[in-house]
Amino acid sequence: MAATRWVRYRAADGRTGFGALADDGVHEHAGDLYSGPRATGSVLAPGHFTLLAPCEPGKMVALWNNFGALAAKLGKAAPAHPLFLIKPSTCLLGPDGVIRRPAGYAGKIAFEGELGIVIGRRASRVAPRDALEHVLGYTCVNDVTAAEILGENADFPQWCRAKGYDTFGCVGPAIATSLDASQARVVTRVDGVERQNYPVSDMLFGVADLVSRLSADMTLLPGDVIACGTSVGVGSMRDGATVEVTIDGIGTLRNTLG
Amino acid sequence: MAATRWVRYRAADGRTGFGALADDGVHEHAGDLYSGPRATGSVLAPGHFTLLAPCEPGKMVALWNNFGALAAKLGKAAPAHPLFLIKPSTCLLGPDGVIRRPAGYAGKIAFEGELGIVIGRRASRVAPRDALEHVLGYTCVNDVTAAEILGENADFPQWCRAKGYDTFGCVGPAIATSLDASQARVVTRVDGVERQNYPVSDMLFGVADLVSRLSADMTLLPGDVIACGTSVGVGSMRDGATVEVTIDGIGTLRNTLG
Repeated sequence: MAATRWVRYRAADGRTGFGALADDGVHEHAGDLYSGPRATGSVLAPGHFTLLAPCEPGKMVALWNNFGALAAKLGKAAPAHPLFLIKPSTCLLGPDGVIRRPAGYAGKIAFEGELGIVIGRRASRVAPRDALEHVLGYTCVNDVTAAEILGENADFPQWCRAKGYDTFGCVGPAIATSLDASQARVVTRVDGVERQNYPVSDMLFGVADLVSRLSADMTLLPGDVIACGTSVGVGSMRDGATVEVTIDGIGTLRNTLG
Repeated sequence: MAATRWVRYRAADGRTGFGALADDGVHEHAGDLYSGPRATGSVLAPGHFTLLAPCEPGKMVALWNNFGALAAKLGKAAPAHPLFLIKPSTCLLGPDGVIRRPAGYAGKIAFEGELGIVIGRRASRVAPRDALEHVLGYTCVNDVTAAEILGENADFPQWCRAKGYDTFGCVGPAIATSLDASQARVVTRVDGVERQNYPVSDMLFGVADLVSRLSADMTLLPGDVIACGTSVGVGSMRDGATVEVTIDGIGTLRNTLG
């Protein structure tokens, strides 16, 4: 199949749908994105829709310490198995959505530009050689963190709380069905200034290995997102800042800290 | 409203549904459990159905260090805010379901008998005085853990992995719409031997406070479960063991480690 960029949208009349993004707009599809979507023949021209998050994950599996350069910088050993936390479905935010500061929290809010893997087919204990058959495609992720929540309690690192707030799981703009991971780079800009620019090829666990290993930890369902972890250059955003995560072939995910 | 025990079931003909559990069977209901369920007048007699998990949570919020007796035993200070991890929806297991040992894992598997709060109405930043309006009722939880996964990596405690395996979120048998927390006790038996018997009133954060504070961390949706944390007596199960979590007024949740 030719490379497709799947998006979900809200049309001007309020209707939501999904389709394939092209230069002339969104080619509307019907049916199930994960199971035989059919082109309707209709095209929504630019200006007649706004993009939503391209999938509705039941869970986001967010990796920690999955890039060689960041592990080296932090002096962390490469893990024997992917290290992750779960971000709940309620943290999902789509393209151009506003990241909301948690009520009563005045501390730093960090961005992390990441590659997202979108599951296309139920995956439970799949072998690495079969893993890519369970992947629909790739998207951009900004894995947002309330940095000072993380270490607030000395006995228990609060990964799920710090990264699970509503709007802290930015995903989009599209799901690209093919990506050459050997060439892809994740570029993150804050108010136009480049802060991250790192190669996907530096992942400690590559895509097939991640999907296989995580599918042994839990069943992955269509629409679930694996946020592959970030690399060097992470930092915090001031209120009002715009963060853009760009991966060539997918597009640019843009969000503002409101 | 009179106290109701809501259950979900699979009938002998394979059909699934929900209803109110009574001595003469399940009083079938139609519509939405969370929004105006209607009695159909049909009753499924005992023997003509098997129980499923009573809700289908989008997420389970699992508390750590929420009981005074266990905190004292472990020498942990009472936290300033609920400490939690997220268990994914894919770990759900209903009454009489078989807990599956993770592939390739030969270590200890721990049980934790807990009170579960089932959300009935969307809750975002609700005040403590309004919190109970967002609760449908209470259930029993066995928050299962692959104990040796938790500390396997020195840099990152793997709470979500250790507690997120498929079948590690046992919930049921019913959602009781009323519970006198000042009197309720959580009793856990392994192969008939009592291992836990602790009062719900020992919770560091009570029900209304938990729902209020967690609703500030993330939106809670109908069917979501808050597993309130456990107290003294936790331990591990041998393969083949049957674990029963009993809370009077709710019932007994029984599962076997397969």
